[in-house]
Amino acid sequence: MKGSVGALGEFGLIRELTSRISGTPAVRLGPGDDAAVVAAPDRRVVASTDILVEGRHFRRDWSTAYDVGRKAAAQNLADIAAMGATPSAVLLGLVVPAELPATWPVELMDGIRDECQVAGAGVAGGDVVRGDTVIVSITALGDLAGREPVTRTGARPGDLVAVTGWLGWSAAGHAVLSRGFRSPRAFVEAHRRPEPPYPAGPAGAALGATSMTDVSDGLIADLGHIAQGSKVRIDIRSAALDMPAQLNDIGQAVGVDPLQWVLTGGEDHAIVATFPPETKLPARWRVIGEVLPSRGRGAPVAPGGAAPPRVTVDGAPWEKAGGWDHFAG
Amino acid sequence: MKGSVGALGEFGLIRELTSRISGTPAVRLGPGDDAAVVAAPDRRVVASTDILVEGRHFRRDWSTAYDVGRKAAAQNLADIAAMGATPSAVLLGLVVPAELPATWPVELMDGIRDECQVAGAGVAGGDVVRGDTVIVSITALGDLAGREPVTRTGARPGDLVAVTGWLGWSAAGHAVLSRGFRSPRAFVEAHRRPEPPYPAGPAGAALGATSMTDVSDGLIADLGHIAQGSKVRIDIRSAALDMPAQLNDIGQAVGVDPLQWVLTGGEDHAIVATFPPETKLPARWRVIGEVLPSRGRGAPVAPGGAAPPRVTVDGAPWEKAGGWDHFAG
Repeated sequence: MKGSVGALGEFGLIRELTSRISGTPAVRLGPGDDAAVVAAPDRRVVASTDILVEGRHFRRDWSTAYDVGRKAAAQNLADIAAMGATPSAVLLGLVVPAELPATWPVELMDGIRDECQVAGAGVAGGDVVRGDTVIVSITALGDLAGREPVTRTGARPGDLVAVTGWLGWSAAGHAVLSRGFRSPRAFVEAHRRPEPPYPAGPAGAALGATSMTDVSDGLIADLGHIAQGSKVRIDIRSAALDMPAQLNDIGQAVGVDPLQWVLTGGEDHAIVATFPPETKLPARWRVIGEVLPSRGRGAPVAPGGAAPPRVTVDGAPWEKAGGWDHFAG
Repeated sequence: MKGSVGALGEFGLIRELTSRISGTPAVRLGPGDDAAVVAAPDRRVVASTDILVEGRHFRRDWSTAYDVGRKAAAQNLADIAAMGATPSAVLLGLVVPAELPATWPVELMDGIRDECQVAGAGVAGGDVVRGDTVIVSITALGDLAGREPVTRTGARPGDLVAVTGWLGWSAAGHAVLSRGFRSPRAFVEAHRRPEPPYPAGPAGAALGATSMTDVSDGLIADLGHIAQGSKVRIDIRSAALDMPAQLNDIGQAVGVDPLQWVLTGGEDHAIVATFPPETKLPARWRVIGEVLPSRGRGAPVAPGGAAPPRVTVDGAPWEKAGGWDHFAG
C-alpha cells in the first residue's frame, strides 16, 4: 500500500483497517454498522478507556506503528485484567493527519489485533478522523465470569502484597533508548511492547485477591492508589523484588539505581494484588510486601506533621518516589 | 473555578470531572479504579466509539463546552439507539491543552452528563491527557433487552422507509451561524445541541424494523448505507418530508434550497428505519419512501453504464447528494 491516508480517503482507510481484523466469538457484530455487539455473559461488562497522544505517550521514531498498536491495546487490556476480568473486545478511536503514510494506521491496527489475540479479545469497531497529530483512543471491554470485580479498596492490614509480570523493564528500555542505544534488546523490546500477564487478573481474583491493579504508573504510585483506596499503608521489601543481573548492568552503565526503575517505572503492566495472609500463592506470584494499618506503631513520621507516606520501602519513604502527572513538565 | 487545566493538574482535573457526575443504576462501578463495571442484563453489550477534533467537529467560538459535551454524547448515544438498544453508560477520553481554562472540560462533562441523563445512561469512566488541541473521544454502551440488534442489512424490497426526529435543522443552523447570524434560535440550538429521539430506537426494533440507522451524515448518505448493506435501492418521496415554514424562510434568506438540508444535512441524529409494508406505525414515525429491488424496471440509468444510484429522490438521483468524507477538504 502506497500513499497517504489523505490519498486513500476516509472510506478507503476504514476498508483497509477492517480488512485486517477477523471475527472472534465474543464479537457478535463487528465494524460496519452504527455500533458493535459484544458478548457479556456475566450480565455485567468491564470497560476502560485510554487515550494516547503522539510525542507524549509514543514516538513514531522510537516505535513502529505495530508496536504502538500492541502497547496501546496492552495498557487497556491490562486494566480489564486488573479488575479480575477476561478481555473480550476493544474499540478504536483514531486521529490521523492527512499526510501520514497509509501504512501507519494499518500496521497500528495489526498491532492492536495481535495484542487482542494474546489477551483473548477481538476488535469490535472504531472511528477514524483527521487531525493534526496522531491520537489513539482505545476502549477495552471484558467479562467477569461471575466473580466480583477486584477494586483498589479492599486491602486489609496483614494482607500479603504480591506481584506477577515484569517491573522496571520498560523504564530501563526507555533509559537505553533515550541515550541513543538500541540494546540490550530484551529491555528495549519491553519498552516498545509490554507483556501484561493477562490471565493473572482472573487468576488473582479466583485466588481471593482483596485488591488488585496493574502497574502502569510505577509500583509505588500504583500501590499508593490501593493504599489510599483501602485506607491502609503498604511496605515493600526491596530484597523480595526481582532484580535481574542485566538490569543491574544497565543501571551501572547509565548511572541509575535500577531499584528506581523497579519501584517507579511504569508501563510494564505487571499485576499487583493483596491477598489474605494465609493465601497459598502459585509460584508465578512473588510476595513483595505487606499491608499495614494506616497509622500506629511503626508508621514513619513525615516532616512537619504531614500524613505518613502511604507506601514505604523497607520501612522508609522512597525519596524519589512518585507517579506521572501528565500535565506536569 | 479559576485558572488553566495545567494549573489544576491531572489529578485535580480528574477530581473536578468526577465530582460532576452521579451514580446511575446501570453503572455498577464508576470512575476511580482500573476499569468501570456496567450492567449488561441482555448478556450482550452494544458499543460505539466516536472521536471529535476541535476545529473539525466543533468550534469553541460557536459552541460552549457544555454544548460540545451534549453533542458529543448525543451522537454516540444515538448510535446505540439506532441498533435498537437502550443506552446504559459512556466512557470519555479527553485531550486538553495545558492552557485551556479549567472550566472548559468541567462544563463539557456537565453537558455529557446531562445528555446521558436524557438518554437514560450514566458516565462510567474516562481518561484525561494533555495535548495540543482539544479531542473528545466517547464510547457509549447499551443494552438490547432481549431483542436482536437492528443492522443496516435487513431492508427488503417493498419495505416502508420511515423517519422520526429532526432532519435538516442542524444544517440550517450551521448555515445561519456561518453567515454570522445567531437566529432563528431553534435552528442554531439544533446545530449546537441535537435532540436524537432515543426511545425511537428500541421502539423501532419492537415495531419490527428490518434495518435502522441514525442520520449522522445526511438522509441520502445514511439511507445509502442501508441500501448498500441490504443490496437494495431506496426512493425518497420529497413531498412526504417535513418542511417547516421557518426552514423555507431560512433557505430563501441564504439562497439555499432547504430540501438540500433535509436530504443531505447530518448531525440531527434522526432515526430512519425500514419496516415491512403492512406495519402499523405510530404517528411519530413519518413514512418518507420505499425500498426497491436493486435493479430492474424503473431503476434509473446512470451515465456510462455505471451502477444505478442506491438512493433516489422522486425516482431520480439527487444531484448534490453525498455524505462527508472527513479526509477531503
